[in-house]
Amino acid sequence: MKITVLAGGIGAARFLHGLANVVEPSSITAVCNVSDDLTWHGLHVSPDLDTLMYTLAGLEGEFGWGVRGDTQTTLERLRELGGDEWFSIGDRDLATHLYRTGRLRAGSTLTEVTAALVTAHGVRVTCLPVTDEPHPTIVRTGEGDLQFQDYFVRLRGEVPVTGFDFPGRDARPAPGVLRAIAEADLAVIAPSNPFVSITPMLVVQGVRETLSRAPGKRVAISPIIAGSAVKGPAAAMLESLGYEVSATSVARLYQGLVDLFVVDTADEALLPEIRALGMDAVATDTMMTGEEGRARVARNVLAAAGFAESVA
Amino acid sequence: MKITVLAGGIGAARFLHGLANVVEPSSITAVCNVSDDLTWHGLHVSPDLDTLMYTLAGLEGEFGWGVRGDTQTTLERLRELGGDEWFSIGDRDLATHLYRTGRLRAGSTLTEVTAALVTAHGVRVTCLPVTDEPHPTIVRTGEGDLQFQDYFVRLRGEVPVTGFDFPGRDARPAPGVLRAIAEADLAVIAPSNPFVSITPMLVVQGVRETLSRAPGKRVAISPIIAGSAVKGPAAAMLESLGYEVSATSVARLYQGLVDLFVVDTADEALLPEIRALGMDAVATDTMMTGEEGRARVARNVLAAAGFAESVA
Repeated sequence: MKITVLAGGIGAARFLHGLANVVEPSSITAVCNVSDDLTWHGLHVSPDLDTLMYTLAGLEGEFGWGVRGDTQTTLERLRELGGDEWFSIGDRDLATHLYRTGRLRAGSTLTEVTAALVTAHGVRVTCLPVTDEPHPTIVRTGEGDLQFQDYFVRLRGEVPVTGFDFPGRDARPAPGVLRAIAEADLAVIAPSNPFVSITPMLVVQGVRETLSRAPGKRVAISPIIAGSAVKGPAAAMLESLGYEVSATSVARLYQGLVDLFVVDTADEALLPEIRALGMDAVATDTMMTGEEGRARVARNVLAAAGFAESVA
Repeated sequence: MKITVLAGGIGAARFLHGLANVVEPSSITAVCNVSDDLTWHGLHVSPDLDTLMYTLAGLEGEFGWGVRGDTQTTLERLRELGGDEWFSIGDRDLATHLYRTGRLRAGSTLTEVTAALVTAHGVRVTCLPVTDEPHPTIVRTGEGDLQFQDYFVRLRGEVPVTGFDFPGRDARPAPGVLRAIAEADLAVIAPSNPFVSITPMLVVQGVRETLSRAPGKRVAISPIIAGSAVKGPAAAMLESLGYEVSATSVARLYQGLVDLFVVDTADEALLPEIRALGMDAVATDTMMTGEEGRARVARNVLAAAGFAESVA
C-alpha cells in the first residue's frame, strides 16, 4: 500500500516516525510544508523539512528541532560579533543549510537537494517539498505583517494573529506531489497546524483539488487535544482568529478533503458534532509520547482508517 | 603621520601587524584586496580581509588564515553530506562569513561590514576594502579560466598561469580609499603578490593614478626574497609568465608608482639594477619571523623611508 502524508513540523515528524516503524518506510511519501522557510544570513533554511529529516533519522533535538547534542560554536561567535541572533542554529545543523544553499545556487531544485539530504541521513521515507518555488506564509498581526519565523521564533507566537497571506499561492507543485496524493491508498493530513502548515500546501496549484478528488482513504489527525495544541501556535491562532479552540474547528477547516477525522480519546465527546460535518470520526490515543507512543498512534490511525492488516 | 598600506593576504597582514606594534595603530589605513573573495555555499567570504583582521587581532591560524584553534564541526558534517569541500572553513571563522553575508543582504556595504567586524575584533587599524563592488581576479591557465581560490586552493596553485583578467576592472573605489592614498605621509605597497593582490587594486578606478601622483613617500617591499616567495604563488606566477623570479621583476612592475623599493639583505646584489629602474632601493632584513620579526621589519622599512623618528 502507498501512504502519503501532508506534513508540517514536529507533530507530523513524530507521526511519520511512528508510521515508518510500523509499515515499510519506502511505501511512505511525506509532502512537506516549505512556507516557514527562511533566509538566514544568506542561507536557505527549511525548518519543517529538517525537523522531518532529523526526526526520521532519530537525530532530532530535545525541543523537536535541530540536531540532538549539537554544539553552537558558530552561533555563539555570531552573537559576539553583534548579530541579532534570535534564530538558533547549531554547528551540525548549519551544514545542512550550507549544503542546501550551495546546491540551490548551483541550480538544483529543492526537491533534488531534499532527496540527497534525506538519503545522506539514511531516511527511506520519500520527502517531497510541496513546491520548489518561493511560497512564504505571511502572518498578519497587530504588529504588522510578519514572516512566519519572525512571528513564531522572534516574537514567540505571542502577538495576536488576525490572518494569513500566501503571496506565493500560485506556486506550482513540485514533481511527484500531485501523483503522490492521487495514487495514495491512504492520504493523511498530519496533526499539524491547519493555518501555517497545511493550508499553505493546500493553496499550491492543484493540491486541494487533487486531495478533494483522491480515490484513496483520506484521514486527518487533530493537532488539538482537549482544547490545546500539543506543540506550536495552533491553539493561540484558533483563539485569536475567533474560532473555538477544539478539534471540531480543525475538522471544519478540512470539510470536503477527508473521509475520516481522528481525535484523541480526550475529545470523544466531540465525535457527534464532527460527524455532523459530513465526515466519519473516531477517537483514539493520539499522544505521541516517546518512540513507542509514536508507533502506537500510527497503528491506531491505520486501524481507524481500515488498514490494520498493513501493520508490520 | 598617516600611513596607508596596499595590502593582500598573509605577507601584508604580518607587515601590518608589525607596523601596528611600532606606530599608533589608528594612524594606519590598510587598503585591502577583495579580488580573491568568493561565494561559499551562498556566503560571502573575503579571505584577504579576514587574514588581515585575524592577524591584527592576534587570532590568525597557524597557516596564516582562519582562526587559531578553530574547530571544524560544520565542515566535517558538510563533508559527510557529500559536499566537495576543498575550501576549509572553521566554526568560529564561519561566524564572520555569516555576519558579513547577512549584513550585505540587508543593504550594508562591504566597507561598513568590514568596519564593524574589525571593531568587534578590537582592531584599531582602519581596514578599507579597495572597492565595494564585485571585482574578481580570473586566473588564466592551461586548464582554462579559474576563479582565484579555485586556482590557489583547489588546484594548490600547481597549474601554469598564462595571464589574468579583471572583469570588474571598472569597479569604483570604496569611500575613503583614494583619500587614504593621496593624504598618506607614507604609502606602502605591502610584500604581497603583485599579480593577484596588488594589480587588482591598482586597476580599480583612480587607484593607480592617485598612487602615481601621491605627494607622500611611496615605498614597496619585495615579496620575493632570494628568488622565491615567502608565501603563496608569486614566484610560480613570475616563472610561468616568463619573468625572472627576482625582486627586480617586482620592482619593474611598480615603476612610476614608488620612490623606494625595499629588498631583503639576501638580495643586496640587486640594488644597482633596481636603482636603474628609476627608483631608490635599499636592502634590509624583511623576514617576518615571529611577532618580534614583524615589528623589526616594520621598523626597518620606516627607517629606510626616512620615518625612523615616528617609531614608538
